[in-house]
Amino acid sequence: MGNDNRPIKVTVWGEAQHEKRQPEIAKIYPDGMHGAIKTGLENQLGAAAEVRAVTLDDPEHGLTEEVLADTDVLTWWGHMAHDKVDDAVVDRVHQHVLNGMGFLPLHSAHYSKIFRKLMGTSCSLIWRNDAERELVWTVRPGHPIADGVPHPLIVDEQEMYGEWFDIPQPDELVFISSFSGGEVFRSGCVFHRGKGRIFYFSPGDQEYPVYHNKEIHKVLANAVRWVAQPDVHRSGRYTADNAPAGWIER
Amino acid sequence: MGNDNRPIKVTVWGEAQHEKRQPEIAKIYPDGMHGAIKTGLENQLGAAAEVRAVTLDDPEHGLTEEVLADTDVLTWWGHMAHDKVDDAVVDRVHQHVLNGMGFLPLHSAHYSKIFRKLMGTSCSLIWRNDAERELVWTVRPGHPIADGVPHPLIVDEQEMYGEWFDIPQPDELVFISSFSGGEVFRSGCVFHRGKGRIFYFSPGDQEYPVYHNKEIHKVLANAVRWVAQPDVHRSGRYTADNAPAGWIER
Amino acid sequence: MGNDNRPIKVTVWGEAQHEKRQPEIAKIYPDGMHGAIKTGLENQLGAAAEVRAVTLDDPEHGLTEEVLADTDVLTWWGHMAHDKVDDAVVDRVHQHVLNGMGFLPLHSAHYSKIFRKLMGTSCSLIWRNDAERELVWTVRPGHPIADGVPHPLIVDEQEMYGEWFDIPQPDELVFISSFSGGEVFRSGCVFHRGKGRIFYFSPGDQEYPVYHNKEIHKVLANAVRWVAQPDVHRSGRYTADNAPAGWIER
Amino acid sequence: MGNDNRPIKVTVWGEAQHEKRQPEIAKIYPDGMHGAIKTGLENQLGAAAEVRAVTLDDPEHGLTEEVLADTDVLTWWGHMAHDKVDDAVVDRVHQHVLNGMGFLPLHSAHYSKIFRKLMGTSCSLIWRNDAERELVWTVRPGHPIADGVPHPLIVDEQEMYGEWFDIPQPDELVFISSFSGGEVFRSGCVFHRGKGRIFYFSPGDQEYPVYHNKEIHKVLANAVRWVAQPDVHRSGRYTADNAPAGWIER
Repeated sequence: MGNDNRPIKVTVWGEAQHEKRQPEIAKIYPDGMHGAIKTGLENQLGAAAEVRAVTLDDPEHGLTEEVLADTDVLTWWGHMAHDKVDDAVVDRVHQHVLNGMGFLPLHSAHYSKIFRKLMGTSCSLIWRNDAERELVWTVRPGHPIADGVPHPLIVDEQEMYGEWFDIPQPDELVFISSFSGGEVFRSGCVFHRGKGRIFYFSPGDQEYPVYHNKEIHKVLANAVRWVAQPDVHRSGRYTADNAPAGWIER
Repeated sequence: MGNDNRPIKVTVWGEAQHEKRQPEIAKIYPDGMHGAIKTGLENQLGAAAEVRAVTLDDPEHGLTEEVLADTDVLTWWGHMAHDKVDDAVVDRVHQHVLNGMGFLPLHSAHYSKIFRKLMGTSCSLIWRNDAERELVWTVRPGHPIADGVPHPLIVDEQEMYGEWFDIPQPDELVFISSFSGGEVFRSGCVFHRGKGRIFYFSPGDQEYPVYHNKEIHKVLANAVRWVAQPDVHRSGRYTADNAPAGWIER
Repeated sequence: MGNDNRPIKVTVWGEAQHEKRQPEIAKIYPDGMHGAIKTGLENQLGAAAEVRAVTLDDPEHGLTEEVLADTDVLTWWGHMAHDKVDDAVVDRVHQHVLNGMGFLPLHSAHYSKIFRKLMGTSCSLIWRNDAERELVWTVRPGHPIADGVPHPLIVDEQEMYGEWFDIPQPDELVFISSFSGGEVFRSGCVFHRGKGRIFYFSPGDQEYPVYHNKEIHKVLANAVRWVAQPDVHRSGRYTADNAPAGWIER
Repeated sequence: MGNDNRPIKVTVWGEAQHEKRQPEIAKIYPDGMHGAIKTGLENQLGAAAEVRAVTLDDPEHGLTEEVLADTDVLTWWGHMAHDKVDDAVVDRVHQHVLNGMGFLPLHSAHYSKIFRKLMGTSCSLIWRNDAERELVWTVRPGHPIADGVPHPLIVDEQEMYGEWFDIPQPDELVFISSFSGGEVFRSGCVFHRGKGRIFYFSPGDQEYPVYHNKEIHKVLANAVRWVAQPDVHRSGRYTADNAPAGWIER
């Protein structure tokens, strides 16, 4: 995976609205949630990655064609402003994922336009915000995303996300969480769409310091490495076409 | 599957544009392609199904909320007028599929708005219209959709559809086709989306009398029986919600 | 599924050793665990099924070729005497499952010879016998096995089974359980092997009256209906062979 | 994948009976089929791999505990002597695959003891040895095993392998082949078993010089890289156990 000779280019996308409007959340995330995610990835990946952060309020939400063409992995956190994301930008991101750009939707991004567009389902779930303990259990040991992750990974306080989570059956189910209240959730799910790899990871509500947790950083860094396919993203093979007899290679 | 005490309600959706504009196609399908599909299902299913046909040119394309609420299985054939299908109707069909209505997209419906919305991918493929022989091989014997289907099922003349077919990995791969020209295609694919069952089946170009073929009718009838889940479609359970502690049943 | 005109033939296989040796277990299951499962299925399925029970101590463990040829669905509970099951009987059951006989391994049958032979993995898991509450959550609503099952289904006291459960990724994951102690478990798993359908369901330790629970009976009855494929089991198609050119149907 | 700082250790297992007994095959493969595979991998992987070859006639078939513990990827070709492979060696290989050793069963290895043990099915298929052209089509572009592989890869002469191939549904289907005679075959299949990765690849009959084909070497080399997980194979985590409350990490 990844290109041996240059760093993985990661773009961290942050909605960055809660932090601007709710002082109690700005206190938890003084550099924004995107800032915490960026720092976590930099600490874990060092020279193996170049990480930038962009947000909803940037022109074109920071996701111009130029930026996406230069991105190996896009992480996405959004919640209160899903409907503020421009459809043209959603379509652009969608196209890049199908072309091989890695995609990491996080927590409430389950309801983002781009995740729902990629899944084709409602992506609904049940929830309860009551500072419950979440345990993240590995059900696919040996998967690179689970490498070095505690079993269970313990998040002391977190919003509960529960089943039924209306997604297509994941191509690979890596983590299942339980909560103090007894609910369960498929919290780490791999999907292949087009030539792209997607990893949905649910821990990370804005009201809790989940993205300051080093074990969570470990999962995110593993996931960045695993969904990155720079050579695939930059290849133009396999376009749909009227095909002459004789299998001229495409 | 299906309700033991009443017929499966099938709505056959036809684009019905080629037949109106191209005499050579009207000659193959004097009652429209939807007419041929309807007749084939009636012959196969008899009293076990009630089949109606509606088309693009009907008000709301024939797919009102009332019709869909009274439909257990919707079949879909479209090609030259995908973009004429109203987005509101697409959203309505999408919602019903997620709620449990069976869905059978046929042949060029791979590029319909509704199929692409359900898949989340481009659904592109390669093609060549050269009257080639298609062989449909069963790779999941025991699956109800393959029941009684010849191995291989032979379609004498048909448009070639070839890989790469840009779809999510099917939940169940039932048929793989080969063509005289050597190409292969995943021609019978099951997907589960929401509570609905989807079966994509590729044989059936407008220029060939594929929908007059009794073995093709057999596949379609098997598929209707299998994707029909009348009791599921009419149930309202599992809505997304803020969930109180204590698991009040939903 | 199943044949419309005759009952599903179910064979309940019981190890029936705990009940003979441990009075405290005989007290919970005076007719054996197999007896409780048989009664539960009869109550749920009525005339739709003919249920017989056989046990380890019967000649050939009650699983002669004649019995299996007359069985649509075999349920299996074993624990302390897995290694007493004759390899020839295991091979015979294996062959029938591949031919289309439905198979329902229950709880500690995860370590039975026949389940491990069908899975190809160690089928190991973690466990703790501490009378914990198990919650069984549906993650595949719309699946016939989940029909009418509470969400969650609550088992007041049960042995904990936890991940990592070393099985191939299930073809369909229907239930996930959580336990008071915080662990999670893929407790309802569908596998297709050969032409047969397999449903592994984990609730049901010998020390607790789980098989007297009507909601558990409901799951078992749904599963019997779903894995039964009498017409498939009795068909001889698709034998491996040297294949002449020209696709003589097989 | 793989360890960045040392070569992947590959053990090529060859049955090596045809070459000893049939001069016409020894002529095609003067160094044995294992020799051709070894050379192909060395040419493709260079310093990134250390390749050794062992055969059936070696003590313990060359697969001692010491050799397997020092193997990241095992390739397997067998045909006429499947039943000569000692069950104890099969069990040893099986355990290593579950622990994370990569495994590449080739062509007629579909009927080897070890592949059938890992799959749990009969692994039967149809065949015809008539020097037919095989076309290998990629249905999972973006998968590392398909990297740089022609679409289609053309094998001029080869034994036909056709469906139905009685295997569990592959976790990832990478290649589908067609043959001159019209048959199709799932010719490149990924399975995850335990912590191990398996890739079955069907081209390669003893009567044709398939393992001298550089494009086939490319697939094999890609597959070696992809199934190799040296760090996983050497880790002892996730052993089954009686689990104390409180999730002491395992």
